Amino acid sequence: MPKLHPDRLFPADPTTRAVARALYQSIAELPIISPHGHCDPSWFSNNQRFIDPAQLFVTPDHYVYRMLVSQGLTLDQLGVARADNTTAETDPRKIWRLFADNYHLFRATPSQMWLDYAFENIFGIDEPLNSSTADLYYSHIEHCLGQDAYRPRALFERQNIELLATTESALDTLEHHAAIQDSDWSGRVITTYRPDSVVDPDFEGFSDNLQAFGAITGQDTQNWQGYLAAHKARRVFFKNHGATASDHGHPSACTADLSPRQAEQLFTKICSGDFTADDAEIFRGQMLTEMAKMSLEDGLVLQIHPGSIRNHSSQIFQSHGRDKGFDIAQRTDFATALRPLLDAVGMEPDLTVIIFTLNESAYGRELAPMAGVYPALKLGPPWWFFDSPEGIRRFRESTTETCGFYNTVGFNDDTRAFCSISARHDVARRSDCAYLAHLVSTARLDVNDAHEVAYDLAYGLAKSAYRL
Amino acid sequence: MPKLHPDRLFPADPTTRAVARALYQSIAELPIISPHGHCDPSWFSNNQRFIDPAQLFVTPDHYVYRMLVSQGLTLDQLGVARADNTTAETDPRKIWRLFADNYHLFRATPSQMWLDYAFENIFGIDEPLNSSTADLYYSHIEHCLGQDAYRPRALFERQNIELLATTESALDTLEHHAAIQDSDWSGRVITTYRPDSVVDPDFEGFSDNLQAFGAITGQDTQNWQGYLAAHKARRVFFKNHGATASDHGHPSACTADLSPRQAEQLFTKICSGDFTADDAEIFRGQMLTEMAKMSLEDGLVLQIHPGSIRNHSSQIFQSHGRDKGFDIAQRTDFATALRPLLDAVGMEPDLTVIIFTLNESAYGRELAPMAGVYPALKLGPPWWFFDSPEGIRRFRESTTETCGFYNTVGFNDDTRAFCSISARHDVARRSDCAYLAHLVSTARLDVNDAHEVAYDLAYGLAKSAYRL
Amino acid sequence: MPKLHPDRLFPADPTTRAVARALYQSIAELPIISPHGHCDPSWFSNNQRFIDPAQLFVTPDHYVYRMLVSQGLTLDQLGVARADNTTAETDPRKIWRLFADNYHLFRATPSQMWLDYAFENIFGIDEPLNSSTADLYYSHIEHCLGQDAYRPRALFERQNIELLATTESALDTLEHHAAIQDSDWSGRVITTYRPDSVVDPDFEGFSDNLQAFGAITGQDTQNWQGYLAAHKARRVFFKNHGATASDHGHPSACTADLSPRQAEQLFTKICSGDFTADDAEIFRGQMLTEMAKMSLEDGLVLQIHPGSIRNHSSQIFQSHGRDKGFDIAQRTDFATALRPLLDAVGMEPDLTVIIFTLNESAYGRELAPMAGVYPALKLGPPWWFFDSPEGIRRFRESTTETCGFYNTVGFNDDTRAFCSISARHDVARRSDCAYLAHLVSTARLDVNDAHEVAYDLAYGLAKSAYRL
Repeated sequence: MPKLHPDRLFPADPTTRAVARALYQSIAELPIISPHGHCDPSWFSNNQRFIDPAQLFVTPDHYVYRMLVSQGLTLDQLGVARADNTTAETDPRKIWRLFADNYHLFRATPSQMWLDYAFENIFGIDEPLNSSTADLYYSHIEHCLGQDAYRPRALFERQNIELLATTESALDTLEHHAAIQDSDWSGRVITTYRPDSVVDPDFEGFSDNLQAFGAITGQDTQNWQGYLAAHKARRVFFKNHGATASDHGHPSACTADLSPRQAEQLFTKICSGDFTADDAEIFRGQMLTEMAKMSLEDGLVLQIHPGSIRNHSSQIFQSHGRDKGFDIAQRTDFATALRPLLDAVGMEPDLTVIIFTLNESAYGRELAPMAGVYPALKLGPPWWFFDSPEGIRRFRESTTETCGFYNTVGFNDDTRAFCSISARHDVARRSDCAYLAHLVSTARLDVNDAHEVAYDLAYGLAKSAYRL
Repeated sequence: MPKLHPDRLFPADPTTRAVARALYQSIAELPIISPHGHCDPSWFSNNQRFIDPAQLFVTPDHYVYRMLVSQGLTLDQLGVARADNTTAETDPRKIWRLFADNYHLFRATPSQMWLDYAFENIFGIDEPLNSSTADLYYSHIEHCLGQDAYRPRALFERQNIELLATTESALDTLEHHAAIQDSDWSGRVITTYRPDSVVDPDFEGFSDNLQAFGAITGQDTQNWQGYLAAHKARRVFFKNHGATASDHGHPSACTADLSPRQAEQLFTKICSGDFTADDAEIFRGQMLTEMAKMSLEDGLVLQIHPGSIRNHSSQIFQSHGRDKGFDIAQRTDFATALRPLLDAVGMEPDLTVIIFTLNESAYGRELAPMAGVYPALKLGPPWWFFDSPEGIRRFRESTTETCGFYNTVGFNDDTRAFCSISARHDVARRSDCAYLAHLVSTARLDVNDAHEVAYDLAYGLAKSAYRL
Repeated sequence: MPKLHPDRLFPADPTTRAVARALYQSIAELPIISPHGHCDPSWFSNNQRFIDPAQLFVTPDHYVYRMLVSQGLTLDQLGVARADNTTAETDPRKIWRLFADNYHLFRATPSQMWLDYAFENIFGIDEPLNSSTADLYYSHIEHCLGQDAYRPRALFERQNIELLATTESALDTLEHHAAIQDSDWSGRVITTYRPDSVVDPDFEGFSDNLQAFGAITGQDTQNWQGYLAAHKARRVFFKNHGATASDHGHPSACTADLSPRQAEQLFTKICSGDFTADDAEIFRGQMLTEMAKMSLEDGLVLQIHPGSIRNHSSQIFQSHGRDKGFDIAQRTDFATALRPLLDAVGMEPDLTVIIFTLNESAYGRELAPMAGVYPALKLGPPWWFFDSPEGIRRFRESTTETCGFYNTVGFNDDTRAFCSISARHDVARRSDCAYLAHLVSTARLDVNDAHEVAYDLAYGLAKSAYRL
C-alpha cells in the first residue's frame, strides 16, 4: 500500500466506494477556498523562505506538539518558544528527531494524514517517517525549503488556493495585507476582524488594549458611543483590506440584547475595572449582538467560536504563554444562549451568523434545529479536533437530517500549519464524498443531486456564505 | 433509479442488505399502530375533502416550512396563518411553486423521503418535484383530492392504519371522537389526555383555563382536592373516548413527590398567580407524579415529552403564534429529575411511563440505564427531529445494549401531516430492519430472533405498551 | 449458525472482515491482564467450588438481574440477598428457570454475548438458553461445578488470566491476598486500594470508618496529618499485597487543590459532622489531589471513576442495600472539574491518572483533548454499560483522532462475574480489531501498524499503564 492510498477515507463496500470515488474525482481539482484560518500574512508579503523543517512542521502546530507532550516530552525539548520569547532547544535536527522517533503516536489521527499528505504531495517523500528515516526527511525538506518553489507564494499556488483568509486583532495595522495588495502577486489573502482583545474584559491587557483602540481610531473608547464608533471604523479598515467577516472566540455562546442605556451602563462598569464575572459574560454577549447589528450595516459575516477553555494549564500558561495546545472544550449550551441575539436579528435574511462548536452534543439537539429555521444562522463546519474524518462524519450525520446541506457553509481549515491546508481540504472533501456516497447507496440521495452537493460542500457554499 | 428504491435505507453490504430485505418483507404489510400523534379528529368525523395541495403538504407541516424559512422565505409567503388567523398568501398554487422551487433544500432529509413516499405511493407521481414539475404536481394532487378515494377515511384505510391516536387538550369536548364512535365507519381513532394547559402555570391563559376546567367538570378547581378530582373526571371522560394514555409536554423532566400538605400549599400559591419560576417547575413536576398515581388507578399510560423550548423566536410567536417550527431542544437531565417520580412509583409493574427525549446525550447515559431496571419506565422512540434514519440508528445503537428491545415501545409518528404517516412508519421499519440486519451479520443476534424482534418493533410493542 | 460465530463482531464487508480476522488471530491467545475488577479474592485463597448455577450467573451479576427486574420480576424472586442478609427465594433451580424463561430480554445485549461465551467455552453448551433448555443447562452446569476443573483456580487458568486485580476497601485486612501469596498456587491476584469509605463524608458510616481507619493504622485519624499518614500507611500495606493502583468512585470529577491550612480546616469541619454538601464535594476533590501527590511518592496509579448516582432507588436501597443494579449515570463535566488536580500534578511524567466516564459526551469534548496533552492523564476504557461492542466503537471513534491509542490503557473488565472475564476481553479484543480493520480498509492505518496496535490494546498497554 502506498503511503497515500488513492481511495483513502472512502467506504469499504465496493459499490459505495465507487460512488465516493466518482464524486471525489469531480471535485478534487477545485481550487481551495480557505475562509477562516491563522496563517501569518507576512509569509506572503515578504515571501521569505521557511526557516527549517522543525519550524515548518513541529513548533507552529499545536496538534503535533501537544501529542508529543502528552507522552512526556516537554515544550522546551520541542523548541516551542517560552513566554519570554526564549527557546530552550534551538537545534532543529534534534527537534525533528524527537518528532520522528515518536511518530507512531499519531497513528490514526488526522495529524498523521495531514502530515503524510504534505510529505508526499508537497515534498515528494513517500517513505514512512520514523527514527530511521528522520535524517533523510530532514535533509530533503531542508533542501527543498531553500528553493524558490518552496517559498510561501509558490506553495500557496501549488496548493491550489484561490483565497486565504487570515485573522487579525482589532489593533493590527494590517501592513502585510496592504503590502500583498500593493504587490504584483495575484494571490488573494484577506484579513478577518477579530476584536476579542478589545471586547473581552478578561483578556490580558484589556484596559491597555482599549487605550490603544482609541489611539488607532481617534475615538473616545472610554465612552460607549465612541467605543462602538471605533469598532465601526476598524471594520471599515478591515473591509478595505479584504475582510468579509469578523470572528469572535468567547468562552460561552452567551448573547445579550440590552437596552442602549443598560449597555452603556454596563460598558462604564467594565471600563472602571470593577466588574464581576457575570458582567464580563454579559458584556461579551452584548457585543455579539452589537456586531450582528453592525453586520447588517456593513455586510461582514459574523463568526462565533465559543466554548473553549483557553490555557487550561496555568503552569504552561506561565512558562510558555497562550495557545500552546492546552485549550480544552467545555459543555456549551446554545438554545438559550443565542436566543437574545436571534430574537434581535435572527430573522434578517441579509445577515449571516456562522456558529461553530466543540460540543458535538449540541449538533442535533440545538444547532441544526436553529440553523434549520432562522434565516440568519448557518452552521460552521466541524471545528478544531473535529476537523477529521470521524468528526466530519458525525457532523453530517447529526445535522443534515434537520438543517440540510444549505444551512452549512463548506469547510474551514482554521490552521496556522500552512502546508496542511491542501491536506485538510482533501480530507474534508473525501469525508464529505464518503458521506454522500453512503446516502446514495442507501437511496437517500439521488446520485446527480449528490454531485451538485459535493460541489457545493467543496467550493460553492464557502464562497457564498462568506460573500467571496 | 426510481424515486423510491426498493432497498432504500438498507445497508450497502450485499449480505447484510439481503438480511435487511428479508426482515423488512416479513413485516412490511403489518397494519400501522399510531399511538401518538396530532392529526385532527374532525378529518375523520366529517370526512370532508382536503382543501388543496398546499394545505395538505405545506402549511400544516412545520418540518417543511421551517426549512423554507431558514433560507429566507417567510411564513406569510408560505400561507401559514398568523396569530390573528389571517393569512397573507392565499393562492395555493403560489405556495406550492415556492415549495417546489426550493425542494432541493430537503435533500437527504427525512422530509424528502416522507414526501416522495406520499407523492409516489398515495398520489402515484414518480417524477422528481422541482420548478419544472411544480404545476404538474399541483394539478394532479388537486385532481385527486376531489375524489372520494382521497378523503380522510379512505386515506386512513389506504395507509393501512389499524389505530390512530390523536391528542386533545383537557378542555376539549371530544365531539369529533364521539361522532366517529357513533358513525358507521370502523376506523379506530382514539384520543389522548393532554392537560398541559391546566397543569403548566406558564401556559398562556392558565388561570382562565383553570376556570374552564372547573366549569367542564363541575369541580372546584381552585381547591387542590377539587383540582385533582377534575383531572380524574376528565381522564374517565377521555377513556370513554378511547384514550389509553395521557401526554405531558414539559420544559424539563423535573418531577416532584411532595407531601399532600406541601402539594396543597403549592397549588394555592400557583392559583394566587404569585409564584416563582421554581414554583411553576415544581408544580409541573408534582403533577407528573400525581398523574402517575392516577394511572395506577385508571390504567392510562403516562407519556412525558420534556426538553423543548417552545416558541423560541418571540418575533414569530407574536406574529404567528405557537407551534410554528421554532421549537428548539435544550439539554435535559433525567437521572436526577425523574428520581422523585421513580421513587414514588417506579417499581410498580402495572404502571407504564414512557419517556421521550430530544437530548440524545441522555440515551445511553441516563435513559437506557433507568429503563433497563425500573419496571414502570419504558423508552419512547426517537422523537421529533430524530424520527429519521440516522436518529433511529443512534437510538438503537445507544440504548439496546443497556435496556434491550423490550423496554422500548415501537414507533410513534407524532405527526399532523396525515399523508406522512405510512411514510414515517415505513422509514422506521426499514431503519429498524437495517439495524437488526447489522446485528445479524455481525453475529450479535440470531436471524430467527431478529424476525421476532422486527415484528415486535413494527407492531407488537406499540400494541402492548399502549394497552391497545 | 453456531451460537458463537467465529467472525462475530467483525465488520460485514468481506475485505474489512478479513483484516479484522487476521488482526484478531494474532492476539486472540494472548493472556488476559485484568487490572481492574471486583472478583472476591476468597475464591482464590479458599478455592472452594462455586455453590450453584444461580449463584454463579444470576445473583452476583447486576447486568443480569437488573434486566429481569425491568420487566417486572423482583430481586426477591431472583434470590438477590436483602439488606438484612436474608434471601427470599432459596431454590436455585427456580431462579435459574426465571432467568431462562426471560433470556430473550438479553437479545443483542453484551450480557447475552458474555453469557453465551461462558456457556459454550467454559461449560461446553452450545444450545440456546430458553425455557425448554433451562433444566438441561442447570443440571449440566451443576454437574461441572462439582468437578475440580471448575474450581476458581482452575477457571482462572482456563480463562488464560495472567493477572487479576481485585478491589478492597481501605479497611480490609487483605487476608485472602496474603493467603494466596503464601499458597503454592502461582496465579497472580493483586489488590487495589479503594478508600471511598474513609474519603467520602457521605459514605454510610463514615465517622465509624474513620475510627476504624485510626485503629487499623495506629494513626490519629481525627487529625489531618494523622489522617494523611494513615492513607500512606495503608497504601504501603496494599502495595505489599500486590497493589499497583488506587481507585476512587466519586459522584463527580471534582478536584481541589487547597492550601495545607485550608485542607486542614476543611478536614476538621468534616470530622465534626457539621458540613455542607459542598464541603463534602470539595473534600473528596481535595483527597484526589492528595492521593495523586502520594502516587508521586509511592508509584501507585490513580484511577478515578466518577459520575454514577449510586442506589438511585431509595426503595431498593432500603430493602436490598447497595449495588443492586440501580446505579444511574449523570452528566459529569471534566474540563473544569479536573483542572485543580491537573494544575497541581498534570505535567508530571512519572504520574499516571486514569480517568473513566459514563458520560460519552465528554469523550471527544473534554477527555481526549486533556489526555492528548497532559502527560499524567490517561483514558480508561469504556466503563460499565459501555463495555460493549457499540460502546467500544464509540469510544475509539470519539477519542483516537484526538489522543491516539497511546494515551489509552487497554481494557478493564471491571466485573464480579468471574466466568465473564474471558468473554469480556474477547468482546473487547474483537471490537478493537473491528475498529482497526475499519481504519486499515479506509487507509487511515497501515496494516503492520494495526498489528502492533492490536497487541498493545489487548495486552501491552494494560501492563505498562498499570505498571504490572
